Amino acid sequence: MKPSVPKGVRDFSPAEVRKRQYIFSKIQQVFERYGYQPIETPTMENLDTLTGKYGEEGDQLLFKVLNNGDYLSKADEQALNDRNSSALTYSISKRGLRYDLTVPFARYVVMNQHAISFPFKRFQIQPVWRADRPQKGRFQEFYQCDVDVVGSESLMYEAELVQIYDQGLSDLGVAADIHVSNRKILEGLAEGARAQNQFMDMVICIDKLDKIGPEKVAIEMEKRGISKGSIDYLMPCLDITDLDTLEAKIGHTESGSKGIEELRQFHRYLDSYTFRKCAVKFDITLARGLSYYTGCIFEVKARGVSMGSIGGGGRYDNLTGSFGLKDVSGVGVSFGAERIYLVMEELGLFPETVDKNLDLFIMAIDQESHFFAFEMVTKLRGFGLAIDLYPEPKNMKKMMKYANAIEAPYVLVIGDEERKSECFRIKNMKTGDQQQVDGIKGIISKFENYPVDK
Amino acid sequence: MKPSVPKGVRDFSPAEVRKRQYIFSKIQQVFERYGYQPIETPTMENLDTLTGKYGEEGDQLLFKVLNNGDYLSKADEQALNDRNSSALTYSISKRGLRYDLTVPFARYVVMNQHAISFPFKRFQIQPVWRADRPQKGRFQEFYQCDVDVVGSESLMYEAELVQIYDQGLSDLGVAADIHVSNRKILEGLAEGARAQNQFMDMVICIDKLDKIGPEKVAIEMEKRGISKGSIDYLMPCLDITDLDTLEAKIGHTESGSKGIEELRQFHRYLDSYTFRKCAVKFDITLARGLSYYTGCIFEVKARGVSMGSIGGGGRYDNLTGSFGLKDVSGVGVSFGAERIYLVMEELGLFPETVDKNLDLFIMAIDQESHFFAFEMVTKLRGFGLAIDLYPEPKNMKKMMKYANAIEAPYVLVIGDEERKSECFRIKNMKTGDQQQVDGIKGIISKFENYPVDK
Repeated sequence: MKPSVPKGVRDFSPAEVRKRQYIFSKIQQVFERYGYQPIETPTMENLDTLTGKYGEEGDQLLFKVLNNGDYLSKADEQALNDRNSSALTYSISKRGLRYDLTVPFARYVVMNQHAISFPFKRFQIQPVWRADRPQKGRFQEFYQCDVDVVGSESLMYEAELVQIYDQGLSDLGVAADIHVSNRKILEGLAEGARAQNQFMDMVICIDKLDKIGPEKVAIEMEKRGISKGSIDYLMPCLDITDLDTLEAKIGHTESGSKGIEELRQFHRYLDSYTFRKCAVKFDITLARGLSYYTGCIFEVKARGVSMGSIGGGGRYDNLTGSFGLKDVSGVGVSFGAERIYLVMEELGLFPETVDKNLDLFIMAIDQESHFFAFEMVTKLRGFGLAIDLYPEPKNMKKMMKYANAIEAPYVLVIGDEERKSECFRIKNMKTGDQQQVDGIKGIISKFENYPVDK
Repeated sequence: MKPSVPKGVRDFSPAEVRKRQYIFSKIQQVFERYGYQPIETPTMENLDTLTGKYGEEGDQLLFKVLNNGDYLSKADEQALNDRNSSALTYSISKRGLRYDLTVPFARYVVMNQHAISFPFKRFQIQPVWRADRPQKGRFQEFYQCDVDVVGSESLMYEAELVQIYDQGLSDLGVAADIHVSNRKILEGLAEGARAQNQFMDMVICIDKLDKIGPEKVAIEMEKRGISKGSIDYLMPCLDITDLDTLEAKIGHTESGSKGIEELRQFHRYLDSYTFRKCAVKFDITLARGLSYYTGCIFEVKARGVSMGSIGGGGRYDNLTGSFGLKDVSGVGVSFGAERIYLVMEELGLFPETVDKNLDLFIMAIDQESHFFAFEMVTKLRGFGLAIDLYPEPKNMKKMMKYANAIEAPYVLVIGDEERKSECFRIKNMKTGDQQQVDGIKGIISKFENYPVDK
């Protein structure tokens, strides 16, 4: 039998794990500086927690876990006789795998509402599972990094989350544009265009501007029954990039005026902030996840690569409603860690030390020296250095081949002479340079200022 | 609908996540110093990778994932008609959840055998899932922390793994005894007693010594058909605690002599090592997982609590055999992180700072001060401090209530006066003491030497 992993899921090699942990830890450090707290939810949720939350397609993409034991004894007889898979499912499976971090977070907030102090700031970095057809860059198991605050309507949090994007991405070396809009602006546009009744049609068309250009957007609007007058009003608006111009256009509408006020307050909080590697761009055409967001909307695109969005989010007013807790406003964003990984690979942004596994590799040429070397290695490890030792005395060629294979940056050989003199030669495997040092102390001082970035 | 999580799985609150991450990161740091490299394997494995590896009971405890789409169209018709759950399962489910980290590791090694340099040292810290009946302290989702080296028979690794237990547990403050034995010693005992044909019976009885005492062990042996002569030979052996006495007894047997030699070599590597909070105890009765281990066997028990084992492992000779790669010897141990958590809670070993979420919490009493405070908070976060700000100006009582609820260690209030003078009073929430500082710099220097242990 030739072993394999299921399609759409992956093993991660040491170098990959290190790079992934590098991303997660940099992002997590920023979340913590901003006062967000970690929670974790279980891999398996009750299916009735998950179903109905992600639309019909989402329900089909949920991984369902078969009940244990004699599950057929409680199966839906009618569905069994009809060979009706979808009708049978809920009678033989009561658990599913986490599909995102948002629904479990909502469930957590409702279950713990009396223990939680609002505003509740949480982050969550965990894998999710979706039965999407596997394809390049799309996996059935992947990590999400979500950061949300619930229980406050303050626009300070929108500003804070944009700073978190800037800090987190800059710490990783990723330059990006943070596109910002507000659902109320789009509502104001619809109101100004007297197309309120065709709001979703309008949004769907505007959302395509990037891909198909303004002329085709206008044609699409016409096809969807938006009047010529409305289209003539809307099209010039899509070029607007500043709030003053926008106010002149839609400031008279109720939603538009509120949306502009919100964006102004948001910008006021950011006034004094110096962006590191990101910039905020007002993008009137941004309509991401509009059925869900009720206020500000964010979408992040890395510069210098063509990768789609590497993050997004916004404000929502009814996260916990489906679990019976009304009127909890929240705002949150997500780091697309899997795509950030690809961006960093493509742009060569991982530091050279990220997959460094060892400081020094030691080899012994006889058994007595091997015992001596093991003692030395133990001491060096006690000083915090990452050290390894070839497991037995062996010929040089074989040991050096291994040292090369595991990419040891430095090596040291111990024989009779070194054991007696405690004088060691450390060899740089890249340059071939050798440096002589005295005793354990000499080795430690050699590595004291050596960049260890784990 | 009242939301809940499935029985046997858990949410983790911020304090719990921090404590768990504290344990994982301390252990991981030790693994890395010892030259072990991280890998990760997917949550879902092919069922044919998992089944048959954990015995019949294990197969029943595997969580199976229902195939997506119209799974009944490919279901076993006979099993369906017979309502035979176990016969049906493999036709409607082809994936299962990871049951341990050992089998996926073996699969990984075989799949990557040509890319891997042996000895291959890996660690893996990931959750596993078992459909055990949930009960106190036993969960259906729990973490394992495994560290193994495959592709070498050197006893240096046995010594190294014992050091890793000592270092890892000591870093966590846990004192423990590391019980050590060797399968070959038990084989030598059986040989000495001329009971080779009743080896497993003998081991099962010896394994009970701790619980039922020597007299009942002897009775049990008799019941299982071990001869009076063998029992008379064996019983005094079970009191032996040193290798010299043991050698006098079973040194003449082939296995016994080999086992003693292995333990001597193992001890030779540890000769110069000063244990920090652990001790090695030779325990001739140790028979943990004997069907699996072929050489040294380890079991770790924390001192000062009654908790069962908090770790274990040993040497195995045929990890990868079931995946078609023969003769790969390996040795590995596991940290029982969930139990270590309980030990640390019971003995109060978590450092006070482990669930500290913030350095300083700031409150503003008017909108202008709030903008000012936000700017200040941003700067302080830039210096690496974990800072939070109440999201809007509000009455003192309400803001202080929140600061208390989130357990802010220090608070600072900003109003008109503070904003203009840039002179701030930092209040210690525990003692009530207030300290006056000048400007951002004053705040930073206050927290510079503040213990942040994250």
